[in-house]
Amino acid sequence: MSTTVNGPSNNGARPQSWSQSWTHFSVDRRSLGYCRITFDHPPINTITATTVAELAELVGLIEQDSDLNVVVFDSANPDFYLAHYDIENNPGATAALGIGPTGLSAWNDVLVRLARAPIVSIAAIRGRARGAGSEFVLACDLRFASHEHTLLGQWEVGIGIVPAGGPMARLSRLVGRGRALEILLVADDLDGPRAERYGYVNRAVADDRLDGEVEAIAVRLARFDHEAIARTKSYVDLTTLPSNSELTPPVNDFRELFGRPAQQAQWTRLQQLGLNTDSDLERSLGQRLVDSLPDQYP
Amino acid sequence: MSTTVNGPSNNGARPQSWSQSWTHFSVDRRSLGYCRITFDHPPINTITATTVAELAELVGLIEQDSDLNVVVFDSANPDFYLAHYDIENNPGATAALGIGPTGLSAWNDVLVRLARAPIVSIAAIRGRARGAGSEFVLACDLRFASHEHTLLGQWEVGIGIVPAGGPMARLSRLVGRGRALEILLVADDLDGPRAERYGYVNRAVADDRLDGEVEAIAVRLARFDHEAIARTKSYVDLTTLPSNSELTPPVNDFRELFGRPAQQAQWTRLQQLGLNTDSDLERSLGQRLVDSLPDQYP
Amino acid sequence: MSTTVNGPSNNGARPQSWSQSWTHFSVDRRSLGYCRITFDHPPINTITATTVAELAELVGLIEQDSDLNVVVFDSANPDFYLAHYDIENNPGATAALGIGPTGLSAWNDVLVRLARAPIVSIAAIRGRARGAGSEFVLACDLRFASHEHTLLGQWEVGIGIVPAGGPMARLSRLVGRGRALEILLVADDLDGPRAERYGYVNRAVADDRLDGEVEAIAVRLARFDHEAIARTKSYVDLTTLPSNSELTPPVNDFRELFGRPAQQAQWTRLQQLGLNTDSDLERSLGQRLVDSLPDQYP
Repeated sequence: MSTTVNGPSNNGARPQSWSQSWTHFSVDRRSLGYCRITFDHPPINTITATTVAELAELVGLIEQDSDLNVVVFDSANPDFYLAHYDIENNPGATAALGIGPTGLSAWNDVLVRLARAPIVSIAAIRGRARGAGSEFVLACDLRFASHEHTLLGQWEVGIGIVPAGGPMARLSRLVGRGRALEILLVADDLDGPRAERYGYVNRAVADDRLDGEVEAIAVRLARFDHEAIARTKSYVDLTTLPSNSELTPPVNDFRELFGRPAQQAQWTRLQQLGLNTDSDLERSLGQRLVDSLPDQYP
Repeated sequence: MSTTVNGPSNNGARPQSWSQSWTHFSVDRRSLGYCRITFDHPPINTITATTVAELAELVGLIEQDSDLNVVVFDSANPDFYLAHYDIENNPGATAALGIGPTGLSAWNDVLVRLARAPIVSIAAIRGRARGAGSEFVLACDLRFASHEHTLLGQWEVGIGIVPAGGPMARLSRLVGRGRALEILLVADDLDGPRAERYGYVNRAVADDRLDGEVEAIAVRLARFDHEAIARTKSYVDLTTLPSNSELTPPVNDFRELFGRPAQQAQWTRLQQLGLNTDSDLERSLGQRLVDSLPDQYP
Repeated sequence: MSTTVNGPSNNGARPQSWSQSWTHFSVDRRSLGYCRITFDHPPINTITATTVAELAELVGLIEQDSDLNVVVFDSANPDFYLAHYDIENNPGATAALGIGPTGLSAWNDVLVRLARAPIVSIAAIRGRARGAGSEFVLACDLRFASHEHTLLGQWEVGIGIVPAGGPMARLSRLVGRGRALEILLVADDLDGPRAERYGYVNRAVADDRLDGEVEAIAVRLARFDHEAIARTKSYVDLTTLPSNSELTPPVNDFRELFGRPAQQAQWTRLQQLGLNTDSDLERSLGQRLVDSLPDQYP
């Protein structure tokens, strides 16, 4: 399968604009129609204020590039797709990201704009994606996951907070009330087959076929008519996307609940157990988060 | 896996309040955070006016108990979870239940309040749950079913009436139009694997692992922060729960259609065939209800 | 399994009214309650202006016949259920169909009225159903598909247009955003098992059991009370059907995009490759439509 890049670019955002230096991911514009983003933020692809700022810039490029049809997001680390948010013990850095063009705070702004962009975004998931990592894949249009090497989850309730990047709004619509409540409240990891059965991902694909299958879909989409993709997607958006007003209240809950002494103490305990490093805690976070619960304290 | 019950109870509803005598189920407050309700109304766990009244009282306790995180509902009878409603040839007893705090009639009031309660309700389903029994599990937050020993269904259309406890509203949102219409209009039983495939339950679990898996989830939830559970659930409620106004019109249809001579005659015929007893009719109700249809009459 | 036809017909639309001569399908009124429609428009069951006109008439009969409970739609051609729309190089014939009673243009009018009709419509799918063929099965209440011999898809985006018969509205609600976007934007075929996993059909049934299973369901439904079916379905309609206003804008997009020179050229190329005939192109349309894309032109 090969792509022929031809025809004039019909707007001002040239592929060259994409060639700035990014620090938490690399960008490979494989053809006019197809771009691949590879998350690469060692050791475990946490999302930080820097990641959010770079994604905001990237989404701005995506929105303005009418040559582009498809963006694939994968990971350089086969064990971690996007671990979760890391506040880097510096809440000010995240707060300083401010409000985006949608009027939402930065993280929700990135996710909402990506979901509404006139292209097809594809999460090619291998490894772990929890919390904000899960929120990112839920904002992508299509999700394909390694059958053998995927762990997805929203762990927030297990650490005493409310998820702030829209998963109540998105999972409820995607997998239905019962399974959304299980994912959000039990706050454990789902593997690839269960994620497929629940509808959390489009499909779990055998690990050795995942890259080929996503590549074939991306190359196919790159050749389609941009306007047909954009308009058809916009009608699905009307029926399936949450309103922006649904996304702000949980952010306030997150801040209030995370600021409580018990949750701050649990966060400290998680760091002692290996949070944000390539630790056993991070590899089995769904199960092991219980080791940080208050009644385990000495 | 063990639970440590600690910390002060932060409201007035003491666990002791739960220790009244219940007649259609037993109550086991296993820890401050975790309560188990076991339906036990021989011979087949029909739901009667008494069951509804007791459930209304139980839901009142659940709503006021801010120590509580999770309530598991299971059955003492492995063949019948909750058979269906039994009007006990005394419609007056059901009518006398009146209107609940939500402004809905008693059965819908119980279901709506359970669905909105700030805890996680779990149906651990083994055996048959049809009609109002299915409506009850649909109002629970999570549904886990025995892979081998589950039969779920809404049989009402097969006896010429409209289901009155909200399954059009709840199934439509949970499993989508096509499968909701099949469940409601074909009115046959679904076994565990099909219920999982359709999204009617979260998961079908091998019978010998069902109790252990539900217990592990309940014990886990009991240790989580109550406020994180309650607020996160409330955002899912906003997207997934029907409005109360959807629930009343079908109750009127039910009354009108059930009052017709042909349906009264079919009901009599069902009683002759073994309704409300541990009969072959009840064990295979989805299939055998056709034996009560008018054109089988002599 | 046998059906007893009895009882007086309680309205004016006698079964005899159905016996006119139809050209694109046959009609078999198997009992008062049960009618079977078999698509038979060689060579591949394309949908044309004639098909739409006949279906409009048929749906009018269905709406007025209060004896009828269930209508099964199958195909005389095991390889093609309903290929897709064939404009017969005569857009005027389609335009002349005008506006139906719902105020929608003819094709959407037929689909909306079928979906709201007070009966159970069942698509018994064997063979290919793409584009308008897929739109038809999505407007039916229940969809059962041959496990081995089904290919479903919305190919429109692959030929540079927007689907005009409601699949953005219907698939979004039926299978969720992620899978709806995949079906609509990747525009490839889904086989029976994948269609079941995605919820595109109720179930994929082994080919040699499909006819028997659908027959059993139809015969069962034919015996049920018409009023119970109609009223129960109407409550599911309230929650699951799109508003009519969602259906018109994509029709305008379709017209605008299809009128572009590149899309007209692609259409000509498809005809050269065997469109509307029993060709390899039609048998593998999801894959082979890429052979008609502009950058393959000499």
